Amino acid sequence: MANQDDQFKKVISHAKEYGYVFQSSEIYDGLSAVYDYAQNGAELKKNIRDYWWKAMVQMNENIVGIDAAIFMHPTTWKASGHVDAFNDPLIDNKDSKKRYRADVLIEDYCAKIEAKIDKEVEKAAKRFGDAFNKEEFVSTNPRVLGYQEKINETLSRMAKSLENEDLADVKALIEELEIADPLTGSRNWTDVKQFNLMFGTKLGASAENAMDLYLRPETAQGIFVNFLNVQKTSRLKIPFGIAQTGKAFRNEIVARQFIFRMREFEQMEMQFFIKPGTQVEWYNHWKETRLKWHLSLGMGAENYRFHDHEKLAHYADAAADIEFKFPFGFKELEGIHSRTDFDLSQHEKYSGKKLQYFDPEENKSYVPYVLETSIGLDRMFLAVFSNSLVEEELENGTTRTVLKLPSVLAPVKAAILPLVKKDGLPEVARKIVEDLKWDFNVDYDEKDAVGRRYRRQDANGTPFCITVDHDTLEDNTVTIRYRDTMEQKRVKIDDLRDIIKQEVDVRSWLMKM
Amino acid sequence: MANQDDQFKKVISHAKEYGYVFQSSEIYDGLSAVYDYAQNGAELKKNIRDYWWKAMVQMNENIVGIDAAIFMHPTTWKASGHVDAFNDPLIDNKDSKKRYRADVLIEDYCAKIEAKIDKEVEKAAKRFGDAFNKEEFVSTNPRVLGYQEKINETLSRMAKSLENEDLADVKALIEELEIADPLTGSRNWTDVKQFNLMFGTKLGASAENAMDLYLRPETAQGIFVNFLNVQKTSRLKIPFGIAQTGKAFRNEIVARQFIFRMREFEQMEMQFFIKPGTQVEWYNHWKETRLKWHLSLGMGAENYRFHDHEKLAHYADAAADIEFKFPFGFKELEGIHSRTDFDLSQHEKYSGKKLQYFDPEENKSYVPYVLETSIGLDRMFLAVFSNSLVEEELENGTTRTVLKLPSVLAPVKAAILPLVKKDGLPEVARKIVEDLKWDFNVDYDEKDAVGRRYRRQDANGTPFCITVDHDTLEDNTVTIRYRDTMEQKRVKIDDLRDIIKQEVDVRSWLMKM
Repeated sequence: MANQDDQFKKVISHAKEYGYVFQSSEIYDGLSAVYDYAQNGAELKKNIRDYWWKAMVQMNENIVGIDAAIFMHPTTWKASGHVDAFNDPLIDNKDSKKRYRADVLIEDYCAKIEAKIDKEVEKAAKRFGDAFNKEEFVSTNPRVLGYQEKINETLSRMAKSLENEDLADVKALIEELEIADPLTGSRNWTDVKQFNLMFGTKLGASAENAMDLYLRPETAQGIFVNFLNVQKTSRLKIPFGIAQTGKAFRNEIVARQFIFRMREFEQMEMQFFIKPGTQVEWYNHWKETRLKWHLSLGMGAENYRFHDHEKLAHYADAAADIEFKFPFGFKELEGIHSRTDFDLSQHEKYSGKKLQYFDPEENKSYVPYVLETSIGLDRMFLAVFSNSLVEEELENGTTRTVLKLPSVLAPVKAAILPLVKKDGLPEVARKIVEDLKWDFNVDYDEKDAVGRRYRRQDANGTPFCITVDHDTLEDNTVTIRYRDTMEQKRVKIDDLRDIIKQEVDVRSWLMKM
Repeated sequence: MANQDDQFKKVISHAKEYGYVFQSSEIYDGLSAVYDYAQNGAELKKNIRDYWWKAMVQMNENIVGIDAAIFMHPTTWKASGHVDAFNDPLIDNKDSKKRYRADVLIEDYCAKIEAKIDKEVEKAAKRFGDAFNKEEFVSTNPRVLGYQEKINETLSRMAKSLENEDLADVKALIEELEIADPLTGSRNWTDVKQFNLMFGTKLGASAENAMDLYLRPETAQGIFVNFLNVQKTSRLKIPFGIAQTGKAFRNEIVARQFIFRMREFEQMEMQFFIKPGTQVEWYNHWKETRLKWHLSLGMGAENYRFHDHEKLAHYADAAADIEFKFPFGFKELEGIHSRTDFDLSQHEKYSGKKLQYFDPEENKSYVPYVLETSIGLDRMFLAVFSNSLVEEELENGTTRTVLKLPSVLAPVKAAILPLVKKDGLPEVARKIVEDLKWDFNVDYDEKDAVGRRYRRQDANGTPFCITVDHDTLEDNTVTIRYRDTMEQKRVKIDDLRDIIKQEVDVRSWLMKM
């Protein structure tokens, strides 16, 4: 646990130090759970988005992209169920006037018991030394077993109460567990109430005519309301998909874990429209295809796992997460949902418009079923960034910090370094920059000793350093250094473009799918 | 005038019919002044954004990009002046309860007089036939001169009253002109009041702790508040720029002209940080550079002009628009503003943090001056789209509708067409699709006669049609047809990639700058 926390702290501070992620409005002491992508972060985020778009839209003849507005007609959110059911259970402390998510208070309580288990394990490990068998210990030690039972009991009762909307029992549970306000220790709680997570705003100027709008809490509905217009103007036949990337907003009460759960975030979603009855086949297809996309980035198959949902959302008949091993453990990175005809049928009902597809093969019209793949761009950013940040012991005993980003996603593909700031070397280096910049994002760096510049570029995630030295003036060759292996090769200036292109080109990465 | 309206209507209906732009939430009868980009529109918009990003960020060693959140700390908008001064003058009709922009009511009144002038000109043209000289007529005809004087008088009085914030006189003007509610004819008006254009929302759940937020009305401030963090982590030296693309929101009362003025829109802004005293030089540099970017797209130098502002915003010491000839006349497409140190100094004042740059050459710290280039992505989309839509008379007397998009921006680069749906031609065509799709967005189209498919792709803006016929099976050649010239050539399948790449590659287009 301590190790995980340390690693996560390193991720956050590295993200700031190397211009990846800044706290939003930092000069005004920040805005809670909102972050800005800095000069390297903006490029990494854009490269991830492009890699997804290319794989989903450009490579698939039957998938097209759209870019719907954040503002939608408010009835959209009645139809989708968000007005009535997109809630968090909240509880106020009467003394401190602070508000909390009731479920998070209970989860935190369980996390504390979990910590006690960790402590027992630690103690036992010390006592038994090499003879210690953790698995055996946790499955037999009476104290640990008691803790574990308490956790299971608590979480399952909470889940049941929330499912039954029995908020009185959620409060009762908090009182029975004697959970106190973490800030003040007070146990003087109000009832638990549901609170809608959508941000509201008003369109139009006059009080009488203003229309209540919501900032979309997901991008999916922008696809559903446009489904028939897209189908008709593109003349696509089922099965076909509509993809979209864009911002969504959720007024999370407890938003934490850096960019993992933000109030403003970006989604990359694809809705695949299919014939009813084929959803199992397509569900499996998209689970497999999306996992392949992740694996193509080479971040280690052991860092991914599927989590099949037992409890399903009201719109789904099957759902799974692709979980990734974040610094704080395995968590949802992407969701694959079999949404049935729930959304389109609801929009038919609320709009009074038919949203049916005429199937020429079946010679009849129907409301298609929908298979959704939904990934958080910011989570994907965090997955890539945290997985890439490593500290390596080198042979000489020093430590090197290196950001081993998949080179297709790296913000800067190559840094061009004149060995010294004289003898015409900077001029040659700049000429290389001028030439390569048409194809790649490249940097020129002449400050400090070359070894220090290598380390800086390693920490920055730059896959290639290209060094211009005195020999370059003689034979038009340069040294190319590989970030991950630190291997150095002598190559012709004229070959640089092809060498870099081969490694960073989207094509060669997607081919691994 | 009538012609312009017709052309504009054609643009809007073509945008819908060919999957470029849909009304937002159309199944719910739309959301006023909000639009969705459909399957082709999303690609065109993305290509414009990438073309700008590449020219501004990738090609300039001293410009980096960021991606700041839409939500910012609310004090940002106090500092920037938006809370106090980002207003429209509004007036309510007491009978209809409808609200209007006072300045727009007055402008509409003038437009009606303008229409009378047009009518006089039309009548005279009919009367005098070939001998008619329009310029002479409008500068001598007493009735026309009277109308023109009335317009000038009205607009200049309105401008003066608004500048002096004399809202009582704006109301007096409306009453003197006997302007009536366009819907009901009532002249029973309230006073004129200022109304802030920012959309508000609330962050956080509890009423006591909720924070009033705004949706950003411009992306520029996201750059200013991050200026020092970016400079320090990138180690850039002045002069340097920070670029950003992203959504902004304005609660416009009268939003019209399709995607030209929307409530939700996207900006592409660059703030260039310079030494105080060098702003005239950089102002001229960026005016010239940005115009070159526009001209590189080959949409006709005659369609652009500069408009230098006489009246300057509170933050500027010089400002110019690049205007483009839209279907409704020359209008602002991009702004180049010399913003002085206004924004950074305001943020220093409101945050209490120093926002100074240490200049190693001068060996002192100062608040930099800022040169801004700001372009509306949606406006740029409309400029490109409307300029590209033409109807051509062909030699055989028929008319062809063709969307002559700059090929670097076209959503689909090539359509692959089997001449007939049999004899193995579809299989060969699909093989070409599978090969080319790694590099370009391509379509496969086998429906209808090939002539009809050509016309469909012309109207869709696709630069190349590639037709597979029976000869292809013999010699591995295909016919490539050029959208703009309708020229057809026989080429080898193996050469297709290079032929297309040469025409659509960003590099060759940017080289025209």
